[in-house]
Order: sequence, then C-alpha cells, then structure tokens
Amino acid sequence: MEALLARVAEDLAKGWDFPGSGVSEKSASLACQDVVKDVLKNLVAIVVPGCHGDKPVSPEYRLAHVSGALSQAIEILATQILAAFQYSCENGDCVPDVACESCIHGAERVVQDFLTALPGIQDLIKTDIAAAYEGDPAARSTMEVVQSYPGLYAIIVHRIAHFLRSKDVPLIPRIMAESAHSQTGIDIHPGAAIGAGFFIDHGTGVVIGETCVIGNHVKIYQGVTLGALSFQKDETGRLVKGIKRHPNVEDHVVIYAGATILGGDTTIGEASVIGGNVWLTHSVPPHSTVYNQQPKPKIRTSTAS
Amino acid sequence: MEALLARVAEDLAKGWDFPGSGVSEKSASLACQDVVKDVLKNLVAIVVPGCHGDKPVSPEYRLAHVSGALSQAIEILATQILAAFQYSCENGDCVPDVACESCIHGAERVVQDFLTALPGIQDLIKTDIAAAYEGDPAARSTMEVVQSYPGLYAIIVHRIAHFLRSKDVPLIPRIMAESAHSQTGIDIHPGAAIGAGFFIDHGTGVVIGETCVIGNHVKIYQGVTLGALSFQKDETGRLVKGIKRHPNVEDHVVIYAGATILGGDTTIGEASVIGGNVWLTHSVPPHSTVYNQQPKPKIRTSTAS
Amino acid sequence: MEALLARVAEDLAKGWDFPGSGVSEKSASLACQDVVKDVLKNLVAIVVPGCHGDKPVSPEYRLAHVSGALSQAIEILATQILAAFQYSCENGDCVPDVACESCIHGAERVVQDFLTALPGIQDLIKTDIAAAYEGDPAARSTMEVVQSYPGLYAIIVHRIAHFLRSKDVPLIPRIMAESAHSQTGIDIHPGAAIGAGFFIDHGTGVVIGETCVIGNHVKIYQGVTLGALSFQKDETGRLVKGIKRHPNVEDHVVIYAGATILGGDTTIGEASVIGGNVWLTHSVPPHSTVYNQQPKPKIRTSTAS
Repeated sequence: MEALLARVAEDLAKGWDFPGSGVSEKSASLACQDVVKDVLKNLVAIVVPGCHGDKPVSPEYRLAHVSGALSQAIEILATQILAAFQYSCENGDCVPDVACESCIHGAERVVQDFLTALPGIQDLIKTDIAAAYEGDPAARSTMEVVQSYPGLYAIIVHRIAHFLRSKDVPLIPRIMAESAHSQTGIDIHPGAAIGAGFFIDHGTGVVIGETCVIGNHVKIYQGVTLGALSFQKDETGRLVKGIKRHPNVEDHVVIYAGATILGGDTTIGEASVIGGNVWLTHSVPPHSTVYNQQPKPKIRTSTAS
Repeated sequence: MEALLARVAEDLAKGWDFPGSGVSEKSASLACQDVVKDVLKNLVAIVVPGCHGDKPVSPEYRLAHVSGALSQAIEILATQILAAFQYSCENGDCVPDVACESCIHGAERVVQDFLTALPGIQDLIKTDIAAAYEGDPAARSTMEVVQSYPGLYAIIVHRIAHFLRSKDVPLIPRIMAESAHSQTGIDIHPGAAIGAGFFIDHGTGVVIGETCVIGNHVKIYQGVTLGALSFQKDETGRLVKGIKRHPNVEDHVVIYAGATILGGDTTIGEASVIGGNVWLTHSVPPHSTVYNQQPKPKIRTSTAS
Repeated sequence: MEALLARVAEDLAKGWDFPGSGVSEKSASLACQDVVKDVLKNLVAIVVPGCHGDKPVSPEYRLAHVSGALSQAIEILATQILAAFQYSCENGDCVPDVACESCIHGAERVVQDFLTALPGIQDLIKTDIAAAYEGDPAARSTMEVVQSYPGLYAIIVHRIAHFLRSKDVPLIPRIMAESAHSQTGIDIHPGAAIGAGFFIDHGTGVVIGETCVIGNHVKIYQGVTLGALSFQKDETGRLVKGIKRHPNVEDHVVIYAGATILGGDTTIGEASVIGGNVWLTHSVPPHSTVYNQQPKPKIRTSTAS
C-alpha cells in the first residue's frame, strides 16, 4: 500500500503540469478561494445592516464595529488583489515574494478606488432592498429582506465584484460571483451592468451573462436565463472571448420564472412582461407582454396511472 | 489610507440609518442567522435518524443523545424566539436587556407548544421518507434517502418553520427556510400548507409560495414553480401583503421538471400529471394529463455548426 | 419544562425505531456525511491544480503536498468504505467493532483499485477543463475555470463517485454526489456514464439521471434535465429499481438552458443542438436542431400593468 500511495502521488503531482493548467511559479501567491470568500462575507456585513455573524450590533457601537471590520477586510483584500495582479503580470522580475512596482501601485490604486466607491455602492444596495420589499407581497419587513433574501445577497456581491472587474482585477471578481452562486443558486457574471432597484425573487437558477445590460427597477424570477446564443470564432476556430452576446433589459421589465432569453442584439423593451418558460431570441418592443400558450388538459378515462 | 478608511467607515456606518432599514435599538438582540442555522441543524438531526455530524449514534445511546441535543437546541431557540418577539414588540418598555412580560410569556408558550408538537412533526416526516423511497427508482434504501436526499431535508425544515410561523414567530421561520433553500436549492415559504407523504425529487429550483395549499402524496420534480401571478395593490398603490395568490395542488398529483404554475385560484385536480416545462395559470380537473407539444427536429444539411 | 423535555426526548428517540428507518446496530459505524464531505474536498484538491484551501502550493512543494494529503484522505476514505460495506453486510458476525473478513478485504480491494485509477481520472478531468475553457467565451484562463467553475467541480466529484459506485460501494457515492449538488446546484447521479471533455456551463438545476449514457465533448447549460419518464412496477406494485430509464446523449451534442429530456429509449443523436426550454420524450437523429416556437409579443395599449 505504501508503494502504491507513493507511485500514485507522484503521478498525480506530475499530472498537475500540463499545457493550459494555468499553474506556474506565480501560482504560489495566488488569490485563494477560501480567503476571498471570507473577505467577501465581511464586506457584505459591513455594507448592509442586519445581523453580522452571531453578534448583533447596537447603534451606539456601529461605527466602531464598521471601522474595525473594514480595516481588517481591506487589508486582506489588498493582499489578494496584489496576488491576482502578480499572477497575470508579464514582468519577469515580478515574483511571488517580491512584486514589481507596477503591480504594487496598481493594487494600491484599486483598493483606494474601491474604498472611495463603497458608500455609493451602499446607496445602490439600498435601492435594491427597497425594490425587494416593495416588489414581494411575502416580505413583511425590510429586516426580513436584509436577513434572508438570497436575491439581495447576490446583488450585493455583484456590485462589489463588478466594481473590481471594472478595475481589471483578474480572477477575484469571478471567485466572488461563484461564491454567491454557490450560496444562492444565482449566477451573475461580474461583467454584467445592472441598474438601480434590481430585484431577483427566489432566484435559484437565474443566469445573467457577462455582457448583459440591465436598466432600473427590473424584476426577475427564478430560473430566468439572460444568455448567449451564438459563439463567434476567430480564424483559427477558437472562440472570441468577451464580445457582446447577452441581452439588454430596459427599465421596469418583469421576467417570470423559467424564461430563457438569448442574444447580444436581443432587447426587452421598457416595461415589458415576459411570461414563464418563454423561449426568446429576438427583441420585443416597449410595453410588450409575451406569454406561452397553455396546453389543454386531457382527462384520463381509466384509473391506470 | 488611514484617513480614507476612517472617512469611508463613517459614511458606511451612517448609511445604515435609513427609513426602512429595519435597524433600531431593538436590533441588538435580534435573531441571528448563523445561530438560527445551528439550532436548525441540531433540530433536524434530533428528529430524523441517520448520521449526526461525524459521530453516529448506536441504539443504546440514542435516548441520551436526543435528550442532550434537544435541551441544548431548545435553550438557544427559546432565546432567539424571544429576541424576534422583542424586535416586533411595540411596547416602549420592552428593551433588549429587559423584555416585557408579554414577550417573555409569548416566547415560553411557543417553545412549549413546539416541544409538544415535535413527535407529531416526526410522524409526518416518516411519511415523507416513505414517499421518497417508494417514489424514486434510484433509492436503494431509506438510509440513502435519510442521509442524502435534499428534498427530504427541505421538507423537514419546512415542517419546523411552518409550525413556528403558525405561532406568529417573526423572522425566524423565514431564516430557517432560506437556510434550507441555500443548502438544497428548494425554496418553500414557511406559510405553505403541505400534506403527508410529500416528495420533491432532485429539487433544485423548486419554488412553493406563501399561500400554496398542497394535499397528500404529492410528487414534484426539480425547477417546478407554484407561484403568484398578479399582485393586488391597495389605494396607495402598495402591494397587499399575504393574500391568497398561490396554487392549490390536490392529492396524488405529479408535476414534472420545469413546470411553472401560477395563481391563487389555480387548482391542480387530484391525481393529475403535469408535464415538463408546462406553463399554466388556470385550473385543471382531477385525473388530467397536461403536456407541452414536442418540437419537430430539423436535420442540418451541412456540417456547419 | 424539564418534564416536557424529557417526555418529548423519549418520544423522539422511540420514533427513530420504525420499519424502513434503516437504523440498526450497524448504523453506529456508518459512513458519515460530514466526514465523507471532508474527504471529498481533499481528494478534489489533490487531483486538480489550483488553490487548495488558503495555502497555495508552489511547484517545488507539490509532490510533498500531494503525498501528505493523499495518505490522509485515503486513510479516512478506507474507514468510511469499510463502514458502508459493514452496514450492508448480511453476515451476522460482522459487527461495528469487528468487521468480517469479507468486508475487510472488499474495502481494501476498492481502495487499491481507486488509487490505481486516480491518475486516469485526473487525465479525464484535464479534458473537462479544456472543454470548459474552449466552450465558454467568458473563460479568460484555465486557472479561472479551475478556481471557480461549478460545472468543473461537479464533474470531478462525479468521476470519483462513479468509480466507487462501479465497485459497489454503498451510500458513499450518493453522499458525494449530493455534496456536490448542494454546492453547485448540479445533480449527477453516480451511476451516470459520462465521456471525455464534458462541460456544464453555469449548471444550476441540471439533473442527470442514474442510467444516463453521455458521449464525448457534450455541452449542457443550466436547468437541463436528463430524466426518467415512466416508472416500471413489479407484481406487488412496487417500483423496479435501477432499470434503464434515462436518455442517451451522443458525441458533440449541445443542450441549451431549461430543456427537459426524458426516457430510457430517448437518444439525442450526434452533434445535435437542443434549444432552450424544449420538452422531449422521443429520440432525434444526428445533426438535428430542435427549437421551441417563440411567442408573438402583444403590445399593451394602456399603461395599466
């Protein structure tokens, strides 16, 4: 058994070295999923009122609590952002223990910009909280929304990840988005642009693609896909990355459960309502309603199942 | 950087104070998500046989194990229920450190009623375990169901949360339901009334709304929505909360994957079968079968994708 | 309260004893969910390069890291496999503290076979990583895929669970699959046979049934069901377990979001494309395209919602 373990361990370790594994000497300092998730959890708690872990914070201790938590989270985030920049850095002198000036200053810049942007992100999130409370008959209080709505958690994480991505931070925004995806079943690519007052109710199965553009006061139900239809390839046959291929959704649109809407030129016009389970790959004008037909029931004449 | 951190922390802390934030002096003792989730995990393990954490329990130690775990869970739950009542209490003398008599007695009453109801809840859950084993060809043993079926976990949590909600406990039932939602992808509002022998197979994406009424021996597959269609507003234009707006599902109904069924007047008649991806906003009689049409395949004549 | 707690604890403990509970003296040593999940997490980290927990591993330490982690994981897995065999063992002399020879040797055999198979499983997973990177325009690097793609995590777990199931290990493969299901929203039964270069994009809501057979280079989007349609019963009216009842998917097929495909005789022919939200219970030939119709939008003439 000892010999077998040794042999297999060697094979597996060698197996880690393959073209396209992404592994290199620089991986040693890479942004780590568990660390990024912890930072994210703390950032969410700092930005949104509600129970933080298992110690609630009364109003008189709020500033002290936020100050301490923010310093701690930012310090760790700064380290992770630097590691992510280093991983992508093409400067031969930039090694795990000694980052190059460009990476160091780049990371510092992002952290300062992020801090400066945080109050504005918090303002946007307040509009999302209001949209959830006003848009869901089941919500009895905004505290209920804040404490338990997965759609709110997903949009908070998105607004943070979207900002970092807009500053070209590699890897970390996607790790954050997938962390929220795992927790809520809601998959929003950090590249998606989303307006104010955004509400995803229930949410499991929602997919919002990288190049989606969504307006203000949009409401989306579970299982809705805003995805890509065709995949452009370059002259070598490889997929072109990052081109506009996901739909646009204008202000005040409502999309019911299970609708699948694809295509970079597909625009759902303002104030439209898209019914459940609809399949759509072309645009609809403002103030449209789009519903599937409902099948006619057949009555079984025997009791055989 | 120090100055920037201080300024942003102050902005964020002030930002927690907004109309509708739900934050008040009373938040300090509020029911906490992490604590509620821990209590819930223990309650589930007490009620359903199977591996509890990583220490299995042999039959001769079972009573000792249940007694200890139950005392511990109930003590914490009692504290959380009191905090939740206090949060909603309109009595000016009822403050975090000194609860009013009404809240104290109310919380004690709920805890006693819950304890008394637990064996009956366990009996219902046994019917759910049987329904899963008998309703799924992939289930090789009831232990497999107990240990690993997410649909079972979701209905156990629901029966606990539904009871607490029936006693008007604020916030906690929704936190429990959303905890199960995060873990299983199954979203059952604590208000939903569900009969015996209930089986959700696979489950990811299922949404069962606040005012659903479901009968006995109902089987539901992944991605099924039993949701609301229209949203009644009052004279000020605000949503009316809590009215009957979700479907009724009678005994022995089977609903296949991805069906979206909406409306408070929509009733799926006894022993009906609803096919996959069906969109339905009106009632169907008992013994109905309702299926979408299947599209005709087109064969591509070239090998271009 | 003390008396009530004692009475309820007794009722609940007795309630654990019921026909079909699966509980027995042998449960004491049963495979535990939390332990199995920990082992699984370590096995995934050993097989796939990327950040392991929060300590990244640089290339020169890789072999040492893999050796240590592998020994530890295998030791725990071996204990769990033995417990699972014992649970199903019908030999009266095989008790929790003293396993029978058959169980001991059977467990050792499985562990050796699993170790021997691991490098081959790693090779298959490399083809899955490549398929994800090449099949998704949003993937900017394979490291991004490895660190954050839930579809990749799900197929890694599947290939491990599928192997153990092929060796008739009870319970554990299903626990592993449901662990991945909880984390990713992707539900692949360990019995499913899946070829190389398999890519599930986004993934939430995907269900792949026990008797599915999937070819090479297949791409599947979120919310797709490959499930069972009818359920054969034996002469006593009970479900027949395990028969072929899930579809076959041939090489190079693409299935878009929300499609529901059912039936053991249903084959999706090579290089076919199945559109979003399609409902299908019959086969389609190779090179087919199958799309739902798209509803016509109606324009609302007033501004009433």
